[in-house]
Amino acid sequence: MTAFVLPVRVYLEDTDAQGVVYNASYFRFLERARTEWLRAAGIEHNRLREELGISLVLVGTQVKFRRPAILDDQLHVRASLAKATGARFVFEQDVRRDSPEGLVLCEGIAEVACMEATRRKPRRIPESLLDELSEWM
Amino acid sequence: MTAFVLPVRVYLEDTDAQGVVYNASYFRFLERARTEWLRAAGIEHNRLREELGISLVLVGTQVKFRRPAILDDQLHVRASLAKATGARFVFEQDVRRDSPEGLVLCEGIAEVACMEATRRKPRRIPESLLDELSEWM
Amino acid sequence: MTAFVLPVRVYLEDTDAQGVVYNASYFRFLERARTEWLRAAGIEHNRLREELGISLVLVGTQVKFRRPAILDDQLHVRASLAKATGARFVFEQDVRRDSPEGLVLCEGIAEVACMEATRRKPRRIPESLLDELSEWM
Amino acid sequence: MTAFVLPVRVYLEDTDAQGVVYNASYFRFLERARTEWLRAAGIEHNRLREELGISLVLVGTQVKFRRPAILDDQLHVRASLAKATGARFVFEQDVRRDSPEGLVLCEGIAEVACMEATRRKPRRIPESLLDELSEWM
Repeated sequence: MTAFVLPVRVYLEDTDAQGVVYNASYFRFLERARTEWLRAAGIEHNRLREELGISLVLVGTQVKFRRPAILDDQLHVRASLAKATGARFVFEQDVRRDSPEGLVLCEGIAEVACMEATRRKPRRIPESLLDELSEWM
Repeated sequence: MTAFVLPVRVYLEDTDAQGVVYNASYFRFLERARTEWLRAAGIEHNRLREELGISLVLVGTQVKFRRPAILDDQLHVRASLAKATGARFVFEQDVRRDSPEGLVLCEGIAEVACMEATRRKPRRIPESLLDELSEWM
Repeated sequence: MTAFVLPVRVYLEDTDAQGVVYNASYFRFLERARTEWLRAAGIEHNRLREELGISLVLVGTQVKFRRPAILDDQLHVRASLAKATGARFVFEQDVRRDSPEGLVLCEGIAEVACMEATRRKPRRIPESLLDELSEWM
Repeated sequence: MTAFVLPVRVYLEDTDAQGVVYNASYFRFLERARTEWLRAAGIEHNRLREELGISLVLVGTQVKFRRPAILDDQLHVRASLAKATGARFVFEQDVRRDSPEGLVLCEGIAEVACMEATRRKPRRIPESLLDELSEWM
């Protein structure tokens, strides 16, 4: 299983009046890392829609917030594909400070479904997509 | 000219680590008020697209931030249509604290273009839409 | 156990290019409902910090996204306190369409810790706060 | 005058149901570029607050949206300091596609005030800060 790690800088937009990163901001960071994991495998959202008629949609998530990130922090956001079966991908993810092996600030699981882009029905992950992703699993 | 005023509560999501409402949040508030102004006239974004094939798109804005809003503030966000000519609406807007006549925190102008929804070319505002909006102008 | 239900309108800011509400937006909606639950019990974030020296901080969440919400939807976001023990509140939450008993779009659990505002250490929920909240439990 | 250009990738979080980047997202991008311009000069928000007791706060902006950015776009966001007088910085900014000389999607001006961090009163830009920034002006 190959992990993808995306560096993410914390800006004012990500923080809140408690002086730390706002909880929903982590879900934006986690999604950015899943998108870059896909892009590293040569796959973009637009291409999925146009060529295969599918969208990837978050259908479930479990996250623990261990320690707060703050303004100006340099974070490293990991996405590792743990499973790809039927219509569903399961990613293991975490957010660390300063380096990819740094202190864990947040960690969890993201379940992503493969959907028909127009009708939003689950659809089995296409074999061609699994092949492209095989080196990342 | 009839003004529409939308009450908006400030939540953690709207604030930043400087302890005040983050600047981009005001643009979300101003857009909510323009959308509710439209809805008050019986018009929703989805209907514009489906029945008339148009989207309303922000093409320019000028804003002054006078005083900061903070967490838990009850804001009142105004949208008044100042002009509707050709393909363009001009709104005068402000954000006030506690009441629609309260202290001005932020004020400015929003220029919104009428676009063909699929090709994103400017399109003259349909007469039928101007008629529906006439009591709001 | 008394549930609090907050009506939330879906604006452009909440949606994404897949044509539905973006996943992180639900976490903003769920937090708004917890904040209004608190406010309904007479408690605001600023007062907690100033009078009791505490902040309430999301430390864990599990959410299932069942069906997509779309632009212009009128949502109803529920927060019910399921537990309040030690330094931790557990809320059961869901997001429904059109009415408080409408179709469930999203549901889950939020764990919120009572923290010392300045040092961000967990702190036992003050008795005075539990008393104020007792009719909501 | 030296310009700073920050590459910014467009993610789902930045887009809306009209299929393009949501207007408020540009203000987040423009602020990120101003922050990185400061950081390139060796200055971080936290240091300004702790060492000099000041915050930099957006007090006015004028923006024209020329063409839409879409999902997966690689943007280049420019911040150039045009003026620094009294308590005020004026930045010229734009957002271009694909390269720092690419097609202009959005352009405008940002006025940023130097404020006392605790009392939010305007304060003359400290000489020491102007010195540090001199090579960027």
